[in-house]
Amino acid sequence: MEAYFDNSATTVVTENVKDIVVKVMTQDYGNPSSMHMVGVNAEKYIKQAKENISKILKTDPKEIYFTSGGTESNNLAIIGSANANKRAGNRIITTKIEHSSVAATMKYLEEQGFEIVYLPVDNKGIVAMESLKNAMNENTILVSVMFVNNEVGAIEPIEEIGKYIKSVKKDVVFHVDAIQAFGKLDIKPKKLNIDILTVSGHKIHGPKGSGFIYIKDKTKISPIIFGGGQQKGMRSGTENVPGIAGIGEAARAAYENLDEKVDKLISLKDRLIDILNEMEDVTVNSQKGKQGAPHIVSASFKGVRSEVLLHALEERGIYISAGSACSSNRPAVSATLKAMNIDKDLLESTVRFSFSTLNTMDEIEYCGEQLNSLLPMLRKYVRR
Amino acid sequence: MEAYFDNSATTVVTENVKDIVVKVMTQDYGNPSSMHMVGVNAEKYIKQAKENISKILKTDPKEIYFTSGGTESNNLAIIGSANANKRAGNRIITTKIEHSSVAATMKYLEEQGFEIVYLPVDNKGIVAMESLKNAMNENTILVSVMFVNNEVGAIEPIEEIGKYIKSVKKDVVFHVDAIQAFGKLDIKPKKLNIDILTVSGHKIHGPKGSGFIYIKDKTKISPIIFGGGQQKGMRSGTENVPGIAGIGEAARAAYENLDEKVDKLISLKDRLIDILNEMEDVTVNSQKGKQGAPHIVSASFKGVRSEVLLHALEERGIYISAGSACSSNRPAVSATLKAMNIDKDLLESTVRFSFSTLNTMDEIEYCGEQLNSLLPMLRKYVRR
Repeated sequence: MEAYFDNSATTVVTENVKDIVVKVMTQDYGNPSSMHMVGVNAEKYIKQAKENISKILKTDPKEIYFTSGGTESNNLAIIGSANANKRAGNRIITTKIEHSSVAATMKYLEEQGFEIVYLPVDNKGIVAMESLKNAMNENTILVSVMFVNNEVGAIEPIEEIGKYIKSVKKDVVFHVDAIQAFGKLDIKPKKLNIDILTVSGHKIHGPKGSGFIYIKDKTKISPIIFGGGQQKGMRSGTENVPGIAGIGEAARAAYENLDEKVDKLISLKDRLIDILNEMEDVTVNSQKGKQGAPHIVSASFKGVRSEVLLHALEERGIYISAGSACSSNRPAVSATLKAMNIDKDLLESTVRFSFSTLNTMDEIEYCGEQLNSLLPMLRKYVRR
Repeated sequence: MEAYFDNSATTVVTENVKDIVVKVMTQDYGNPSSMHMVGVNAEKYIKQAKENISKILKTDPKEIYFTSGGTESNNLAIIGSANANKRAGNRIITTKIEHSSVAATMKYLEEQGFEIVYLPVDNKGIVAMESLKNAMNENTILVSVMFVNNEVGAIEPIEEIGKYIKSVKKDVVFHVDAIQAFGKLDIKPKKLNIDILTVSGHKIHGPKGSGFIYIKDKTKISPIIFGGGQQKGMRSGTENVPGIAGIGEAARAAYENLDEKVDKLISLKDRLIDILNEMEDVTVNSQKGKQGAPHIVSASFKGVRSEVLLHALEERGIYISAGSACSSNRPAVSATLKAMNIDKDLLESTVRFSFSTLNTMDEIEYCGEQLNSLLPMLRKYVRR
């Protein structure tokens, strides 16, 4: 049996997404900037994708821009709004548990003279509102908080944060990295006071190299890539029409019968958590049910290095992640787990299981069996 | 009959490229940063693409990095090297005929305090070496010149420029935008003293949303997108593996029997130029044979607005471009044609025909017939 439990790293492209990508690459392959029919036909896919997405988010299609993925979306959101608002102040507030595409971008801005405040989280990975209240001041121009943490699945109090920020200073830009949340949670940026929302295609069965960014009308933000002025100058470059059509279809599919899908994911997640809770010396770092993201289980296996467990499971056809798998081949100690104050000796013994609706309960049971048979062996050989 | 003559705007994806994109999207869909087999299998495609490209360019595979396309490649080349070298000086030299992804990026750097010198061109679109010699000084950190102009197909004297720059100041970065040259000319960056070379996938029958940048080992350049540290930190973000596999295959195919392909393109081009030269009040702005790029014919039709001609040909199934088609729906007057000192009343009467090896001589003849039947009508109705 095979079980791909690394869906927060990336997902397989579905048949429908593949079909539309192929159609655009081979039939409607025009450059949307071309004035003739071949170009106009290509442009229709962009319009359709914008409509799909804005229907889900309840935004205006004009507020959706396409990028090359989550990392570029986050860079545009953060660098773009920092640069556009630097006359109004230089404080940026974020958290200690952001994805590297936010954390590394913040570090870059710090070198450029911005003051970055990193909010702490509790032992469940949730940002404390109190720390945000202490950090907000007149000098604050941007607050960037992820919706769902990619390593443990913690859901941040985005609604509360948005309400608070806007009650203090209306023109602070509120950016939410929704890369692990989109397709799993109901997200309405306008209701949540979100000015900028960033999403990646390949986490929701869309194509790699595709992403989008919602930018609320009138938000002050500058582009970070310059050229032919496509997408109203916000993101120059010939649009990746196959990728855009693909992410549009993937988004539509993800929100079709969302509740059913979420229920399925939660049943997978909760069953795995139950299995893990029955094991000795295993700590689950994720919340059951709707308290956490439906698709992520982080667990620490005392006395077993995460890479060892990863490769042992791999031999049994089960694919998981050590750490977040978003940092290229650099298994550094997780900032998220450290911020959550996880026991020091568990930091390097923590792995992530992440699901999509393509996974089955049989795979979960199989994984449980394999863990139960592997762990005694692994602990025997790796005992210190 | 249909004739797609807008291949410098974009090209159709070939069967082989489509196949590899589909395979990676649906079978080998892993995240190359994942430590398990599914990730490792995905990484192999990146390695293969780097090998394909470095075999063509005679570079080290380590010197190839993948981007989301030509525009991002040019932004990285220019902003990245300007930022990394700003302590050594602030003069950047480029030309008056660059693509908007270079020109707009230069304008951005100008706003950041860099001094940009724009070299003039002659009436064939060729940069005068004399002007480069006058512009080069101790303060110069970057020279950026396109290999082939996208609007008229002029081939710039890259070898001579490279030799001259390096003879004056060895550590000036020499960037060449090869987006219209790659796949059409034999390019060996090391022989040509090129430090950075930029290429787009969708101009060579590869996927949109794919591009690469050659960065010579030890060139001083900073990333412009930050995150998980993929591609040695030069371009963070989960690699677009289907796109990378696609551009790798497209590059390989483009250079397979290059001479034959170029001969075919030149025969198409030269035949169209012959046809156009026989027409009254038509000026060809491109050079025959190897004096110009093999795939681009720019021509000015006195007394006929380019959009009118474009749409008239479109009705006959012939797809061409007015201006460069790389600027989104903004048919501004072409900077290239102006720099070439084209007659003022021809500026808005100029169109571009651009070919790929999928075009046929029959299509050229058909286009000639249609032009001969259309032009008298169009001139009759649009006479001033």
